[in-house]
Amino acid sequence: MSADEIRLEDLNPEIFIQEQCEAISKEVGDATAVNALSGGVDSSVVTLLAHRALGDRLKTFFIDNGIMRQGEPQRVVSTIRECGAAVQLVDAQDEFFDALKGKNDPEEKRQAITDTFYKSVFSRLVKASGSRHLLQGTIYTDVEETIAGIKRQHNILAQLGIDTAKEYGYKVIEPLVRLRKPAVRAVGKALGLPETIYNRPPFPGPALVARVIGEATRERIALVRQATAIVEQELAGMNAFQCLAILHQDRIPGMRNGKRDYGLQIEVRCWDSKDAVTASPTRLPFEVLEKLAARMTSEVPGVVSVTYNIATKPPSTMEAV
Amino acid sequence: MSADEIRLEDLNPEIFIQEQCEAISKEVGDATAVNALSGGVDSSVVTLLAHRALGDRLKTFFIDNGIMRQGEPQRVVSTIRECGAAVQLVDAQDEFFDALKGKNDPEEKRQAITDTFYKSVFSRLVKASGSRHLLQGTIYTDVEETIAGIKRQHNILAQLGIDTAKEYGYKVIEPLVRLRKPAVRAVGKALGLPETIYNRPPFPGPALVARVIGEATRERIALVRQATAIVEQELAGMNAFQCLAILHQDRIPGMRNGKRDYGLQIEVRCWDSKDAVTASPTRLPFEVLEKLAARMTSEVPGVVSVTYNIATKPPSTMEAV
Repeated sequence: MSADEIRLEDLNPEIFIQEQCEAISKEVGDATAVNALSGGVDSSVVTLLAHRALGDRLKTFFIDNGIMRQGEPQRVVSTIRECGAAVQLVDAQDEFFDALKGKNDPEEKRQAITDTFYKSVFSRLVKASGSRHLLQGTIYTDVEETIAGIKRQHNILAQLGIDTAKEYGYKVIEPLVRLRKPAVRAVGKALGLPETIYNRPPFPGPALVARVIGEATRERIALVRQATAIVEQELAGMNAFQCLAILHQDRIPGMRNGKRDYGLQIEVRCWDSKDAVTASPTRLPFEVLEKLAARMTSEVPGVVSVTYNIATKPPSTMEAV
Repeated sequence: MSADEIRLEDLNPEIFIQEQCEAISKEVGDATAVNALSGGVDSSVVTLLAHRALGDRLKTFFIDNGIMRQGEPQRVVSTIRECGAAVQLVDAQDEFFDALKGKNDPEEKRQAITDTFYKSVFSRLVKASGSRHLLQGTIYTDVEETIAGIKRQHNILAQLGIDTAKEYGYKVIEPLVRLRKPAVRAVGKALGLPETIYNRPPFPGPALVARVIGEATRERIALVRQATAIVEQELAGMNAFQCLAILHQDRIPGMRNGKRDYGLQIEVRCWDSKDAVTASPTRLPFEVLEKLAARMTSEVPGVVSVTYNIATKPPSTMEAV
């Protein structure tokens, strides 16, 4: 671990913001810095922190990788712009889908996204910008889980022994590396982020690719995007820690126009959790589950079967990747 | 259709039994007949009907195909023997698993079971018996659904234009072909079958093979057998039309000993239905669902994820084959 955790109860958000702004200014000096905004709380907080420290010497890129939720790229970019930071929207959908082609294994899919992001798209943008400093929203839990081998976070590089200056040509600055999620949310609130962002439920780095079992084609991502929109609409009031839809790879028998036919299965997960380390399925009312299933089978093309996760984490994981 | 339905309200079980016994006696004459007992209500009723008509000129075989539930072959054989009919238990497990090897498609798996049963195992037994008459538990719904193309029942032959006398060397007698399930149950009760058999919840012809997505190996059948036992134990008091566990083929991420690992998913289905034509998931209490999931993940090796079906039939089917 690079440094000790700053616990929520020991955090003074205003002082933290001031200290981090000073640290960023000192590190970057008169030069410029870049960062990638994903729309998650971590990268949004880093964007506003660094914008406060560097003003227009910060270049923020939002990369549309084609695997985000309905309307998400436009919504995130306009929200952060309203907070005062300049954001450039980059369409890189084709590059990501090309990299994902033929990949079925979750780790290979994750790796394809990481590589396309760091080695291709973002690396090209950083080089074109001429900047030697990269700000990144790594948090304490990302480092911890990667080291423990529970999951491979997409944004862990230095901690895995990767010399970013040598490999990618830039130095990585991680202002949030001593915070866990609740502390990051407190900082985001203090920075003036809207609640839709600082309290945004967790969403995985590999985005909707984490929500399909098997190959993540443009078509399959479009299906799980629709299913995700339905889950998020129907479960918005449930106060759950996280809710998601997973498109399975198994072909499931079903009926179409009174005849036997094969179709797709969507699995819905909705989690109660305090810290994402352990979690249990939310006891949703059956009316809600039945409405979810009815919408999935009528609105998402090809879906004939819908299930609800009833296992806990562990031994399950929250996401399917 | 061979003949009109006899509705439950028009059925006098005693008269039906008497008429069918006479018909069987007339058809078989002084010769012998054979039948296969599966343990379902249909084949059990046929066994007792034909035993009443023919006495020890009926030879009944119970073929252990390796794809039945825990303890089922022994339990069925001893129950029917207690009712007075002689039953011979035949171990044909290897033949069925050989035929299922490498088969992933539900229709191919179903066909492999049908062919192994009719063309190999049972055909051999019938030939060795020297009998030219085969009694079979086809019911009205089997014929109806096969003709409608909803599912391919394993026991429909004549109705699909197969000349059994020519193809297999025996004539098929179907005493129950004008009854639906509730009427068959009433006849079973009148014949003195125990309630565990005449009220047995439906169980598919392809048995546990219908409960695995993908290849039905000996090992995968053993896993879904354990899962099925858990579902049937835990949901015994729920008064459901049918309840089942399905082993999926998708590899699902999970955690083992604190590390990320891949594992299996079991889907539980529990149906409310009157006639099996339409069905909806039983609104099980979450305590029950959570106990099911906890038992599956701790007792069935390799299971990391458990779901509950929330879709209706249609567009889902009740079974997964």
